[in-house]
Amino acid sequence: MATDLCPILINGEWRQATAYDSFVAENPATGKPLKVAYPKSEWDDIEAAVVAASEAAVQMQELDPQKIADFLTAYADEIEAHAAEICELASIETGYPVKPRLQDVELPRTTGQLRQAARAAVDPSWRLPTVDQEANIASILEPVGPVVVCGPNNFPLAFNGIAGGDFAAAIAAGNPVIAKAHSSHPGTCRVLAECAQQALTVTGMPKGTVQLFFGIRRADGERLVRDSRVGAAAFTGSRTAGMALKASADSVGKPIYLEMSSVNPVVILPGALEERGDEVLDELVTSALMGTGQFCTNPGIVFLVAGSTTNAFLDRLAARYDEQPCGTLLSKGTQEGLVAGIEALKRAGAEVVCGNRPAAREGYAWSNTLLRVSGERFMADPEVLQTEAFGNATLAVIADDVAQLAALIGCCEGNLTGCIYSAKDGRDDPSYPSVAKALRPLVGRLLNDKMPTGVAVSPAMNHGGPFPATGHPHFTAVGIPAALRRFTRLACYDNVRPERLPDMLRCYMNING
Amino acid sequence: MATDLCPILINGEWRQATAYDSFVAENPATGKPLKVAYPKSEWDDIEAAVVAASEAAVQMQELDPQKIADFLTAYADEIEAHAAEICELASIETGYPVKPRLQDVELPRTTGQLRQAARAAVDPSWRLPTVDQEANIASILEPVGPVVVCGPNNFPLAFNGIAGGDFAAAIAAGNPVIAKAHSSHPGTCRVLAECAQQALTVTGMPKGTVQLFFGIRRADGERLVRDSRVGAAAFTGSRTAGMALKASADSVGKPIYLEMSSVNPVVILPGALEERGDEVLDELVTSALMGTGQFCTNPGIVFLVAGSTTNAFLDRLAARYDEQPCGTLLSKGTQEGLVAGIEALKRAGAEVVCGNRPAAREGYAWSNTLLRVSGERFMADPEVLQTEAFGNATLAVIADDVAQLAALIGCCEGNLTGCIYSAKDGRDDPSYPSVAKALRPLVGRLLNDKMPTGVAVSPAMNHGGPFPATGHPHFTAVGIPAALRRFTRLACYDNVRPERLPDMLRCYMNING
Repeated sequence: MATDLCPILINGEWRQATAYDSFVAENPATGKPLKVAYPKSEWDDIEAAVVAASEAAVQMQELDPQKIADFLTAYADEIEAHAAEICELASIETGYPVKPRLQDVELPRTTGQLRQAARAAVDPSWRLPTVDQEANIASILEPVGPVVVCGPNNFPLAFNGIAGGDFAAAIAAGNPVIAKAHSSHPGTCRVLAECAQQALTVTGMPKGTVQLFFGIRRADGERLVRDSRVGAAAFTGSRTAGMALKASADSVGKPIYLEMSSVNPVVILPGALEERGDEVLDELVTSALMGTGQFCTNPGIVFLVAGSTTNAFLDRLAARYDEQPCGTLLSKGTQEGLVAGIEALKRAGAEVVCGNRPAAREGYAWSNTLLRVSGERFMADPEVLQTEAFGNATLAVIADDVAQLAALIGCCEGNLTGCIYSAKDGRDDPSYPSVAKALRPLVGRLLNDKMPTGVAVSPAMNHGGPFPATGHPHFTAVGIPAALRRFTRLACYDNVRPERLPDMLRCYMNING
Repeated sequence: MATDLCPILINGEWRQATAYDSFVAENPATGKPLKVAYPKSEWDDIEAAVVAASEAAVQMQELDPQKIADFLTAYADEIEAHAAEICELASIETGYPVKPRLQDVELPRTTGQLRQAARAAVDPSWRLPTVDQEANIASILEPVGPVVVCGPNNFPLAFNGIAGGDFAAAIAAGNPVIAKAHSSHPGTCRVLAECAQQALTVTGMPKGTVQLFFGIRRADGERLVRDSRVGAAAFTGSRTAGMALKASADSVGKPIYLEMSSVNPVVILPGALEERGDEVLDELVTSALMGTGQFCTNPGIVFLVAGSTTNAFLDRLAARYDEQPCGTLLSKGTQEGLVAGIEALKRAGAEVVCGNRPAAREGYAWSNTLLRVSGERFMADPEVLQTEAFGNATLAVIADDVAQLAALIGCCEGNLTGCIYSAKDGRDDPSYPSVAKALRPLVGRLLNDKMPTGVAVSPAMNHGGPFPATGHPHFTAVGIPAALRRFTRLACYDNVRPERLPDMLRCYMNING
């Protein structure tokens, strides 16, 4: 292997990987390869990371939580100090514009999450401490152990395995993180890891608290998430990769939290369309094409009721799709996946209303695509017609009438979100309950009169939902402190002598006694 | 099929099963078959139960939670009204004595759990309602949907699929239950189901709230737990059966909560043995042989440090095992499993200190058995030497010295409990930290100076732990309200109009607004 491969971060040191291969990322706006080569590691590297993380996990249990909070805050500061460099590199690797997307939205979201997590690290109330003085039993949610985090391609900062929501939650809960860089933005991961490493040093954290590698064999990934020394894993990405990791982790009862595919159904009731069709059109176009549609909560399927108003709405929607510029897609794979998704929808009977052709520009891009299919056809092949065409494509499903909507929704799989637009003057109110009743159990977040993109980092947020949106409907990936609970195990102390209780629990014993 | 098979309870009616086979239970105290034949159902019966449960789940969402509480209370009352009949039948089917075990301990525990669950049903605070007024987002843990419950053989009342902890938790969380009777105590299940049915009628609950069948094909069980209309499953029983169900449920991201095998390591530090060996001996004999050792938290492995005090302790332990009567085992299968477990331990190098021969009495029984193995041998084959010999058998593992204890514990799998006995005068204090550090992450409940049997129904209890004790270390099967959270999904409402919010959340919006 060439010795000029980017080093990996193991146990507090940037070291040369034991590489069996290497890769370079591409600039998706041009399709040209970038210069730096990144290693794909042999298991030896992973083994070293697991050993260091296990040691760090034990050390972190003994730490004053304030130290963990200090690290998270220092890391946020470091990211801000390197904001220009990070955003420029992330822009080159993802095709997202530096402003507003990266610098004004995603980077502040990232540092905001880290700072929120820092506050949660020192507040044990979210750990649900429970004390039974009479029985002399106490329980609390404790760190689960080293967490493996694999971030997605579409948020190089806010969901990055080494800086994003899962990372912040795992660390704040008291666990070291072993992060796998996403292969489409490895440089961004490296710079973030340098910031993290600096913050670790400044705050005197255990060396194995944050580690980074760039690539491993699929089989080694599966081995890693079922390793007995690992506490849990978090994965955001494709259903295929997610399910393979899940099967491995599940085989040994190891928690794995996945965010996979979601088509995020949007139901537009007829009254809303009549009352404020232009407004809804604007919201839909913005939500569906923002970031070239590359959001987990992109509104991929829109349910409408047949009629002239709907036909006119779709005509205007197609016109807007045609006139909007075609954004850059994250990678060649993303473009191939989008085109394959559209083809699957077509084969199942969806008709192309507009788009579905190469974009007239360099790099990875595809024209904004609108498809339509009848309710009857949708019900005949609901599985294929829910194929996630990740990117700037939208499927309109046209119900015969309002009564058919609930049946159509009843054919849907689990999703992160579901939206219902209804008239403000009450004319859709008779239709709302049956639609909501069908949609509510299928989605993690039910919205009214609002598109699903824009996942507020709010304590009340649920960025989760029934399978296949995630692997378990009880947990959320966004929202502090709730997201932290994923990376804990319930620990109970029965008749344990007071001086031997963990500090975090002892303070509750005293308060309640 | 014969028409005199016991009927099954589907959608509020006792109906003849569509049976492909039937079975009878045995009285384990005599080994004689009992008279009533119970059906093994075709999928048609299960399909009917799932349809009815789905309808009930929708209806339960709309109910005033007080109605669910009323049902749970009425059910507890009914059980008490039929206590004599229930305990007599349970005694015949399990070999447990009516008094004190069934009538004085297990039945009051069962009704106590139902009443605690009733109180939790009307108190939404455990659902972690979270309101963000500014963002107009609110979230809460909502019922997950119909819950399939399979109870174990060893608690015919308190963990019964149709009356026990999982049942109470699932109902109180707002879900209907489809219960599978355990094949070793089907009559007890039937009488309990009659009580439940009476309580449902009296309180006007949906007909599909509680359903019972007696047996199905293994493949149909796997099909049931992955059915899209089912919300979650709870299983307590063998690792083989549990893992098969888990693999099926996991394949479609369906929550399944399992309690499987646990050997519950007990570490007795040398100081404790010197200081109060007789006391520890009494506690160990009682805990290990109570209920013929058929407890999930039975102390199956005892870690001791080599020396003359330990040898004398084991001699006295063996004498006590020999002199104690051999209790009845729950079934032929239990006896076969116990003998097979002991054989596995022997093959891996454990020596029989006492017992391991047929008991001189009728019915299913085996002599109280004590085995021993060296620490070195244990570390050479830790997996086999952690075989759960479910019943009245105990393995003593003799460490070379105190320093070896942590290494031995480090070879252990996940367990429900782990105990450390140490001297009260402080002489074991230097040894405690390394042992506790090794044991703590492996167990759901850490005990000091106390045996693991006796799982208090306390809000602070954790009856859970890392794999293979359970399938997920975040959850507990005992302890209200925590156990209820297993049967929920996180539901979030974003910009949903106030009048459309679920009642349970609207009240929080008002309080906080």
